[in-house]
Amino acid sequence: MYTDLPEGELRQYRSAQTDPTDFDDFWARTLEGSRVHDLGVKLEQVDSRLVTIDLYDVTFAGFDGHPVKAWLRVPAGTVASGRSLPTVVQFVGYGGGRGHEFENLLWASAGYAHLIMDTRGQGSGWSTGSTPDPVGSGPATSGVMTRGIESPESYYYRRVYTDAVRAVEAARSLPVVDGARLAVLGGSQGGGIALAVSALVPDVAALVAYVPFLCDFPRATVITDRDPYKEIGRYLAVHREASAAVHETLSYFDGVNFARRASAPAWFSAALMDPTCPPSTVFGAYHEYAGPKEIAVWPYNGHEGGGVLDEVMATEALAGMLR
Amino acid sequence: MYTDLPEGELRQYRSAQTDPTDFDDFWARTLEGSRVHDLGVKLEQVDSRLVTIDLYDVTFAGFDGHPVKAWLRVPAGTVASGRSLPTVVQFVGYGGGRGHEFENLLWASAGYAHLIMDTRGQGSGWSTGSTPDPVGSGPATSGVMTRGIESPESYYYRRVYTDAVRAVEAARSLPVVDGARLAVLGGSQGGGIALAVSALVPDVAALVAYVPFLCDFPRATVITDRDPYKEIGRYLAVHREASAAVHETLSYFDGVNFARRASAPAWFSAALMDPTCPPSTVFGAYHEYAGPKEIAVWPYNGHEGGGVLDEVMATEALAGMLR
Amino acid sequence: MYTDLPEGELRQYRSAQTDPTDFDDFWARTLEGSRVHDLGVKLEQVDSRLVTIDLYDVTFAGFDGHPVKAWLRVPAGTVASGRSLPTVVQFVGYGGGRGHEFENLLWASAGYAHLIMDTRGQGSGWSTGSTPDPVGSGPATSGVMTRGIESPESYYYRRVYTDAVRAVEAARSLPVVDGARLAVLGGSQGGGIALAVSALVPDVAALVAYVPFLCDFPRATVITDRDPYKEIGRYLAVHREASAAVHETLSYFDGVNFARRASAPAWFSAALMDPTCPPSTVFGAYHEYAGPKEIAVWPYNGHEGGGVLDEVMATEALAGMLR
Amino acid sequence: MYTDLPEGELRQYRSAQTDPTDFDDFWARTLEGSRVHDLGVKLEQVDSRLVTIDLYDVTFAGFDGHPVKAWLRVPAGTVASGRSLPTVVQFVGYGGGRGHEFENLLWASAGYAHLIMDTRGQGSGWSTGSTPDPVGSGPATSGVMTRGIESPESYYYRRVYTDAVRAVEAARSLPVVDGARLAVLGGSQGGGIALAVSALVPDVAALVAYVPFLCDFPRATVITDRDPYKEIGRYLAVHREASAAVHETLSYFDGVNFARRASAPAWFSAALMDPTCPPSTVFGAYHEYAGPKEIAVWPYNGHEGGGVLDEVMATEALAGMLR
Amino acid sequence: MYTDLPEGELRQYRSAQTDPTDFDDFWARTLEGSRVHDLGVKLEQVDSRLVTIDLYDVTFAGFDGHPVKAWLRVPAGTVASGRSLPTVVQFVGYGGGRGHEFENLLWASAGYAHLIMDTRGQGSGWSTGSTPDPVGSGPATSGVMTRGIESPESYYYRRVYTDAVRAVEAARSLPVVDGARLAVLGGSQGGGIALAVSALVPDVAALVAYVPFLCDFPRATVITDRDPYKEIGRYLAVHREASAAVHETLSYFDGVNFARRASAPAWFSAALMDPTCPPSTVFGAYHEYAGPKEIAVWPYNGHEGGGVLDEVMATEALAGMLR
Amino acid sequence: MYTDLPEGELRQYRSAQTDPTDFDDFWARTLEGSRVHDLGVKLEQVDSRLVTIDLYDVTFAGFDGHPVKAWLRVPAGTVASGRSLPTVVQFVGYGGGRGHEFENLLWASAGYAHLIMDTRGQGSGWSTGSTPDPVGSGPATSGVMTRGIESPESYYYRRVYTDAVRAVEAARSLPVVDGARLAVLGGSQGGGIALAVSALVPDVAALVAYVPFLCDFPRATVITDRDPYKEIGRYLAVHREASAAVHETLSYFDGVNFARRASAPAWFSAALMDPTCPPSTVFGAYHEYAGPKEIAVWPYNGHEGGGVLDEVMATEALAGMLR
Repeated sequence: MYTDLPEGELRQYRSAQTDPTDFDDFWARTLEGSRVHDLGVKLEQVDSRLVTIDLYDVTFAGFDGHPVKAWLRVPAGTVASGRSLPTVVQFVGYGGGRGHEFENLLWASAGYAHLIMDTRGQGSGWSTGSTPDPVGSGPATSGVMTRGIESPESYYYRRVYTDAVRAVEAARSLPVVDGARLAVLGGSQGGGIALAVSALVPDVAALVAYVPFLCDFPRATVITDRDPYKEIGRYLAVHREASAAVHETLSYFDGVNFARRASAPAWFSAALMDPTCPPSTVFGAYHEYAGPKEIAVWPYNGHEGGGVLDEVMATEALAGMLR
Repeated sequence: MYTDLPEGELRQYRSAQTDPTDFDDFWARTLEGSRVHDLGVKLEQVDSRLVTIDLYDVTFAGFDGHPVKAWLRVPAGTVASGRSLPTVVQFVGYGGGRGHEFENLLWASAGYAHLIMDTRGQGSGWSTGSTPDPVGSGPATSGVMTRGIESPESYYYRRVYTDAVRAVEAARSLPVVDGARLAVLGGSQGGGIALAVSALVPDVAALVAYVPFLCDFPRATVITDRDPYKEIGRYLAVHREASAAVHETLSYFDGVNFARRASAPAWFSAALMDPTCPPSTVFGAYHEYAGPKEIAVWPYNGHEGGGVLDEVMATEALAGMLR
Repeated sequence: MYTDLPEGELRQYRSAQTDPTDFDDFWARTLEGSRVHDLGVKLEQVDSRLVTIDLYDVTFAGFDGHPVKAWLRVPAGTVASGRSLPTVVQFVGYGGGRGHEFENLLWASAGYAHLIMDTRGQGSGWSTGSTPDPVGSGPATSGVMTRGIESPESYYYRRVYTDAVRAVEAARSLPVVDGARLAVLGGSQGGGIALAVSALVPDVAALVAYVPFLCDFPRATVITDRDPYKEIGRYLAVHREASAAVHETLSYFDGVNFARRASAPAWFSAALMDPTCPPSTVFGAYHEYAGPKEIAVWPYNGHEGGGVLDEVMATEALAGMLR
Repeated sequence: MYTDLPEGELRQYRSAQTDPTDFDDFWARTLEGSRVHDLGVKLEQVDSRLVTIDLYDVTFAGFDGHPVKAWLRVPAGTVASGRSLPTVVQFVGYGGGRGHEFENLLWASAGYAHLIMDTRGQGSGWSTGSTPDPVGSGPATSGVMTRGIESPESYYYRRVYTDAVRAVEAARSLPVVDGARLAVLGGSQGGGIALAVSALVPDVAALVAYVPFLCDFPRATVITDRDPYKEIGRYLAVHREASAAVHETLSYFDGVNFARRASAPAWFSAALMDPTCPPSTVFGAYHEYAGPKEIAVWPYNGHEGGGVLDEVMATEALAGMLR
Repeated sequence: MYTDLPEGELRQYRSAQTDPTDFDDFWARTLEGSRVHDLGVKLEQVDSRLVTIDLYDVTFAGFDGHPVKAWLRVPAGTVASGRSLPTVVQFVGYGGGRGHEFENLLWASAGYAHLIMDTRGQGSGWSTGSTPDPVGSGPATSGVMTRGIESPESYYYRRVYTDAVRAVEAARSLPVVDGARLAVLGGSQGGGIALAVSALVPDVAALVAYVPFLCDFPRATVITDRDPYKEIGRYLAVHREASAAVHETLSYFDGVNFARRASAPAWFSAALMDPTCPPSTVFGAYHEYAGPKEIAVWPYNGHEGGGVLDEVMATEALAGMLR
Repeated sequence: MYTDLPEGELRQYRSAQTDPTDFDDFWARTLEGSRVHDLGVKLEQVDSRLVTIDLYDVTFAGFDGHPVKAWLRVPAGTVASGRSLPTVVQFVGYGGGRGHEFENLLWASAGYAHLIMDTRGQGSGWSTGSTPDPVGSGPATSGVMTRGIESPESYYYRRVYTDAVRAVEAARSLPVVDGARLAVLGGSQGGGIALAVSALVPDVAALVAYVPFLCDFPRATVITDRDPYKEIGRYLAVHREASAAVHETLSYFDGVNFARRASAPAWFSAALMDPTCPPSTVFGAYHEYAGPKEIAVWPYNGHEGGGVLDEVMATEALAGMLR
């Protein structure tokens, strides 16, 4: 059943989220603070049993110089050939990591350079990661959503979004990547991160966000009981007096506010039966998105959204956007 | 938590399933009956956006000549090159189908010819299929497990296993397939089908069965409440008087009985927290398996079993078996 | 809690379902196609231990001449007496069958001839059936709701509704049945079938539909997560591109469209806490119903609706309608 | 899945329940105490719409003279004919009541006089009752299982079992009842009550107990989490110090102890997947049953047991026992 | 997620509950009827291991003179000192009782005389009670909500509310209690009882009702599926014809109607994610409350409401109200 | 229902957990490492509204000198009086914190000095905390159980157990604490921590561990599906190859191994229906406990164990042990 408004009302819905006045300053300062560290990109080819794809273990300096891991996949022999390729930088869904060598073969098989970044401290859920988050936190609920939520400076996603910006910079430092034809892409949390990057790195060539998470927190935290949004509600159910401060923190990380600052062509998807990232929260960001944009609406799907069809449509869209 | 016996007891457990006396006759007759139809293999290359893999839409005549669909994937250019490759014929899990063009890229990326067969009448669950089952059934519970269960002749899996045998024959008819280096492989239902084929096509070179389904029905139907085994229990809860006949039918389709007739080197996996295919049912088949065999035991996993590690270990194992 | 609109809004609600232009043609063709087969009604008295009721095992030719089973119950000695009785032809709920000899004694005990028809391929759920559905299907989700849903011609309910029309014809062929005083009746799926028959056999004398299923598919498929409506949603969640075609097929089988063509006096019921057949879908059909009509609304009930009180009120209503 | 021991072990299992030394005294005193009140049987014919069955509203004096309601059903015209019939006195399952006039037509249709008794204070669950329990209770959990559980004298089932004994006496006072051919019968709670009556009224001619409740409390309260046994566990989870006293009380009401005192031929059933009345608790009573006995074991059923087949088999059994 | 209207709409919502014309008469008669019995307050000091608090076991005559238990707690030595204290009379939540000697230490620790009353027949849930309800009931669902619901005279809460009025009278009879500075207080059911008392004992000095239950039955019974409101719905699902009579009974016990008659300063709380006592039902009473009032709204909480913060805020409020 | 072995078998059960050879070294090194930091105990009286208890906000240097918060509660005026009291140092359950000023009044009300310590990084669940954990972690599942689980050095509980040892040292530094009569106490996680402290601070005078957590990991991780033990299983389901290393880490933190090193008189409790800390895991530690010991077994309780009765019995036990 629909978990949120029907499509007609979604087309009218607008988020109530507002911009903190120092939003741009906050992020400018944050990125500067990490750019004092050298990117330090390391590439190590991995001898997997795959014959059509070359795989590289990537490390670069993310937030505050912390090492962050990623995989780079390219069609076999590309690096040796000296060619540069249109590129997809992918961020992953909540709980997962960059995964195993044998996973995520699509984008390289489709002829892209494909960098998939670990999400720090995650990677013990549906796929594995190898990147620690060396920063602790105050009292928090299970999960990462409330780590450091006491202030924008200490909030977990400050580190993650910065890592993601650095991942784009790391990719662009590689000869095999055609930096002018680089898209950021992801589903769920990955889509939310990609959306943030599309604002923080304004010259990315395209954004793809499937059923993005991390959007429209004021509404998201009261219309679903599913994790991970519910982690915030669970925190506020105990830290009852912290509601204003928490929402103040979240406003620095809300896809709605990033959307207002983006300009790259974008492709979104939303699912009308999604209990995890209810479609109004996606439309909340989509409507604010300042660049050219399209959205696919899946009426009978939950958080899986369009599934492989999201990828098919993204492939079509990127073929145009990265021409 | 463990859903079944601890590993020590699994190593001792033996299935109580017995062979119907005309088991071999039944299957000989069944296969003969379908072989009167020409295999009629049709291959049509599909123009996907993949650059490293060539994809072919395959149709062949399965049980009773009914058309069955599959995908063939090979590293790009292999067909044109005239080379033949070691081959994986894969069967899929319950409810799924051969899937989308963009899915299941692993085996071709690893250098194999890879044929993945639709399961007739399925393919509306977690992945899509395109193959109808043109045969009706008596009163049945939801799902396919009790269709035609009144007799071995009418039982649904008689058609499916025959399709699977024909899929191997179809694969072997192709120049790109090295028929002497052909493995049958699958997880869950796909593993159960592969196990049946390993007995019905005795010269396949290898069997890989991850957490196989369709094994040890006498025990499986009383130790789990999960579908699809539970479909049978739900049927017998209503057709209370049919228990003996139903178990008679099932004995013609039980992996335990096929295992006794197989000879190819085999790699199995089982998971100690699997509520869907409890590990004793897998061990029930494994212990009877007459060929060389290995089994991976995943202590903390449910029906996902080893996940991508099952594939990694299968890749290792096949590298040896198909040398 | 209410699972749908409150009663005031239900009284205003109108379904958005529309008639396909060839709806009447489709059904005329369908019925003609099956009427080429002789009805071939067979009656066999069964020696049960009941002393107040005579029971007959009935077989007749349904869709495409396929044999369909039913029970006929009459007060003991009625057939021998040569009398004809007012008659109830009953269709059963999803998953059930005509049941056991000892079940469904009400209508004969109340002085009616009572024919209760099997639903082909069902009868392994809460009650048993004996009628196979000899027609296969394309890839489908578990259950019957998506079998043959690719087109109206192949859809499962085309066969069922035709069986039901033939059941009325079979009943009327019996001397013990007073064909002018014949009601069609059922609950849930049985109510949906009865509603279809009330339109396809316009001279039935009465319709009783308790909490009917198979009504107002465009709304039903998006406002509940319960089977069997959800089977359709599950199909469309995978066959994402098939939504328009599926809804086109369903429009030929929607009680809303049949209601517009009926003329017999009708008694409906709906329950405000029904999660399976939400009351708006019932009202969707009820409001379109073209004959004289009444509806009982049960505010605190789920899909059990009025339960035995539905039967009591139906008995009252039929006493008037079949006078 | 099996909810308890497999059948082989059930055949060996013996209950640990023991007899309180004054068990027989307690019940002799209890029945005497109520027999000081006149039975005061009142019969009032009800004008239902049924034509094959005559229905009478029955009231009699139960425990302590409290009025208890029942329905009497006989084939139409029997009372007028002056005949007496073999008789079934039925007790109902937990939460239900004697039900509606249209329900429970089987036994009269099969030629029996059929008295179905309300369970005091129940009858607001799956079927309705009209008999209050005018006695209050100490602090109790929801449901009736812990009302008055502080002592055998105050326990709720002391009143219910006494009502049931009085129901047999009331039935036997009626000319239409052949008191020598009287069976007590019931399912679940009704089976437990019938079992108690078979010991307290030693000359009943037969006992039928489908999946009986109220048996083997020491085991029942620790091997299932389902109500109503769990009501006792929930009470003891709070009244932690009351465990010994509660089990002392229960020993006066345990079917195991009644079984040791019964002598009528008996037919039991048990279901191997029954989570409500796990089969070992039924076997606990069955093994102690002192009269001739049979038990049907349903391997794939839950608490529905044999369903209508239990009734079919009971009909067969009673045909023999009440000859 | 919100379980009911958002706060803006709650501020506008008004209950549809109406006053029965003889509401005041009914309660006047009821209280008079019980006041013919002497209060008979008994106090017995209990030798617990607590050193800062003196504990007394209290018994008084409640409804119809039935003995009701409570605990009195005061700071150690207060009674001996002859001082009188501001007082909190507390009623407890559904299923609980006055609890253990070691529980509920807050109010005495904060310097109040604290009387906490058992709820008759309850006290076997999350905390224990010792007060029986010696009155039986008609057929009822599990729980107390439908006991005696056939009429206001027989309804369970008639007895409970009367007990509560008598508890205030009992408290006021004690020298250690300053009767002019007496507050009634409770959460959930306790809040509903306190609300009733605030109308029935108009000179209490303050009311504190956390997430009160027993308010706005017409809406409460249709917008939640949680017990205890659902007990009523479950009853009406079976006793379908009793709806009007049941709602007539409930109107004599609805906090909305009591609120219209109260005058003491009041402090309420409501929680926007409360599935048990949905906030509109609390606001339904709050808006009608005729005395000075405040309400705390907890946006991210369920039925726990403000938890210890409700107590903190109540302490603040009482410090003012009982000055 | 029982979630584990019956009591008879629990009395026989012995854990298979073994001691790592450098267990004692590891802990000696760990404590030394933190003792280089000054304890730095800070006490600040808090002006709560309580009149019988004085409350102090405590801060001390825990693991690696990190500041850790606690509350100290004593009967009002004790500090001013210069007396020293028997003392309870309490650790709290998983997810909670030291809580609110108004909570946990029991031990001070009973005449003890009561120090209740925050668990770092927790305190956003059922009660609040104020102590951050400034140390990050590798990829981890939600919750704290797998943070730093890659090695004993980095494991989360290394920091927590050290904090707890330091809490005892902090308490003993206070004049109001009689260090010779100091007990460590807690339930669930708090019990597990207390058990560790009883070994690491061998001269504590008593241990109270209600239904302790953190015991017998080899068994605990395979016999329950409840968090928090399941967090480890969830981690190992993804990090399949890490099982040996994870269990190696856990062996340094297992209550079974600490129990072997303790000598203080101890009081344990276990509950036979506990799904969170199954009783065999408690008995696993209890049987190894090297000091004088008792255990209360609650047959009908889940993880709430004896609830307030655990506290009552602990009060009795401590009255003896701390004499």
